[in-house]
Amino acid sequence: MWMSELSERSGVPVPTVKYYLREGLLHAGEAVGATRAVYDESHVRRLRLIRALVDIAGLGLDRVREVLAAVDDESGDLMAAIGAAHMQLSSPPATEPSAASRERVAALVRRKRWHTDPDASHAIALAAALDTAALADQPMSDATLEIYATAAADVARRDLATTPRRDAQDATAYAVIGTLVNEPILVALRRMAHEHLARRRLARNG
Amino acid sequence: MWMSELSERSGVPVPTVKYYLREGLLHAGEAVGATRAVYDESHVRRLRLIRALVDIAGLGLDRVREVLAAVDDESGDLMAAIGAAHMQLSSPPATEPSAASRERVAALVRRKRWHTDPDASHAIALAAALDTAALADQPMSDATLEIYATAAADVARRDLATTPRRDAQDATAYAVIGTLVNEPILVALRRMAHEHLARRRLARNG
Repeated sequence: MWMSELSERSGVPVPTVKYYLREGLLHAGEAVGATRAVYDESHVRRLRLIRALVDIAGLGLDRVREVLAAVDDESGDLMAAIGAAHMQLSSPPATEPSAASRERVAALVRRKRWHTDPDASHAIALAAALDTAALADQPMSDATLEIYATAAADVARRDLATTPRRDAQDATAYAVIGTLVNEPILVALRRMAHEHLARRRLARNG
Repeated sequence: MWMSELSERSGVPVPTVKYYLREGLLHAGEAVGATRAVYDESHVRRLRLIRALVDIAGLGLDRVREVLAAVDDESGDLMAAIGAAHMQLSSPPATEPSAASRERVAALVRRKRWHTDPDASHAIALAAALDTAALADQPMSDATLEIYATAAADVARRDLATTPRRDAQDATAYAVIGTLVNEPILVALRRMAHEHLARRRLARNG
């Protein structure tokens, strides 16, 4: 296909496609004459992955490059690629989380028998969020944390169950999109549930 | 108490306290002489609410002002105050959500028998998020949306169950903090659950 069709199929504007080509994030097409090239499905898939990382995950190009390197690493495996993508998803917190919160996260992971990297960015983000809750004078108890973890695992299990099995590129794109695109849905639903419960409770009290 | 103690108790720096006084967000203390004033518990509570709205909810001062007006409105009720705070939590989406997604949200609210404002910012945010998922080629099915809504209601119910019953100011602060401070916890847990499930699945396949 020509670049115009590639742009249409991937949803990435032509100038951006050209930019990714120049930056080496997208592999070159097959040259047809001096100024034109044709592209194939591999280009569409690659652009969809980049788009997921940039538009949905909000990653800067430096971090996109790291994920793509893991995807391209033939010696590595699919797990390493998805792991690399997941590692990039959460920004490091502004302040280092407390050792106590880090240990609470580690203890939760042991209780849940999760196979997760204790130094992954979201494990650190979780410890930092526990610190914030405590600073805001509303520390989360272990019992509540357990209920949160169960709810999180419920939706994650559903996400994975509906994920198709594909090659490293597609699987990584799907995992990243699935992790991120549904996040605002969960957050908005929780706020709505809060609104509903607060209204109901206040109606009863009033 | 003097301003220094007020600052310490509320966690708001003295220059910021002075700024809130000048802006009328915080009521004046009782004057003691020409240049000093004493403050009481009502000032501590007010500052904690403002801090929750600014630091945790990330609201600009204009939106903080609207929430405080609802809290201060003697003719209004607690529900209106909390409702006003909740209405400000989600930013309006960059693009107007589709009518189809708005209708899906309305249908979900009817199925769940939630008492929520269909025009609240998070209901609109939810519709916009459903559009984003569809654009990313991973539309969320109604069955999955149901599982998400159930998980969201599970954690919200837990939050409300652990909320103390207080006056309008405290209840609003608590509701806002509870809604927001625990959000990053839920998001981080879901990413960890994703990591765990992806690793487990890939380990089985490999």
